Amino acid sequence: MDPRAKVYEIVKKFSTTMMVTLGPENRPEARPMHIAKAEENGQIWFFTGNSGRVANEVTEDRYVLLVFQDERSSYLTLRGNARVVEDRATMKELWSEPYKLWFPGGLDDPELTLIAVEPLGAEYWDNGG
Amino acid sequence: MDPRAKVYEIVKKFSTTMMVTLGPENRPEARPMHIAKAEENGQIWFFTGNSGRVANEVTEDRYVLLVFQDERSSYLTLRGNARVVEDRATMKELWSEPYKLWFPGGLDDPELTLIAVEPLGAEYWDNGG
Repeated sequence: MDPRAKVYEIVKKFSTTMMVTLGPENRPEARPMHIAKAEENGQIWFFTGNSGRVANEVTEDRYVLLVFQDERSSYLTLRGNARVVEDRATMKELWSEPYKLWFPGGLDDPELTLIAVEPLGAEYWDNGG
Repeated sequence: MDPRAKVYEIVKKFSTTMMVTLGPENRPEARPMHIAKAEENGQIWFFTGNSGRVANEVTEDRYVLLVFQDERSSYLTLRGNARVVEDRATMKELWSEPYKLWFPGGLDDPELTLIAVEPLGAEYWDNGG
């Protein structure tokens, strides 16, 4: 199976990934991020707050590690370059109402922005080996 | 609820965690690690290969991030200091047969060693928020 297709097959089972960035003193930190869209070509989209920690950290160092952990089946890590994207058309395409929990102003929320992660490579394990 | 008890309650549901270390050029990397033992006091034990990448990386920089992701309930990250422990009595206590998959020589396998992670702090999210 094409490795890119295999990665996509795993990623699309997840609604959330743990995004690892480098915090102060090069300490890795991670937080759950809802996946707004995973494209078959590999790019993954997220909403985030434009003054928040994730947006700041990927602006300082765009390298991120996405961790996908599902004890019943598989483990995947995906290395990628992240960038903050201010694209109103894509926001509109990817928006759904549950995001109001984090962005009460909806599509007009001044904090709302997008992060796109372009994959550099991935590793997967089928049984935690 | 005591935060330490809450962390223990989450950790003990997992058989595996994603251990994040710093690889070359300060790039975070992660791999699934089977949890040999999670102690109520917070310390977590793993078997690993003593010439392997994890043992080398925690010797260079003992800071690790443990990521626990379960889409059905919760997300936890635990920051900690790792150390390689060559303690035959603890190895014997924590050993179980499935580890032969990675250490065919069993308790006498020359590669077999332990890593203990002492928690520094944790964050958890109940619904991926």
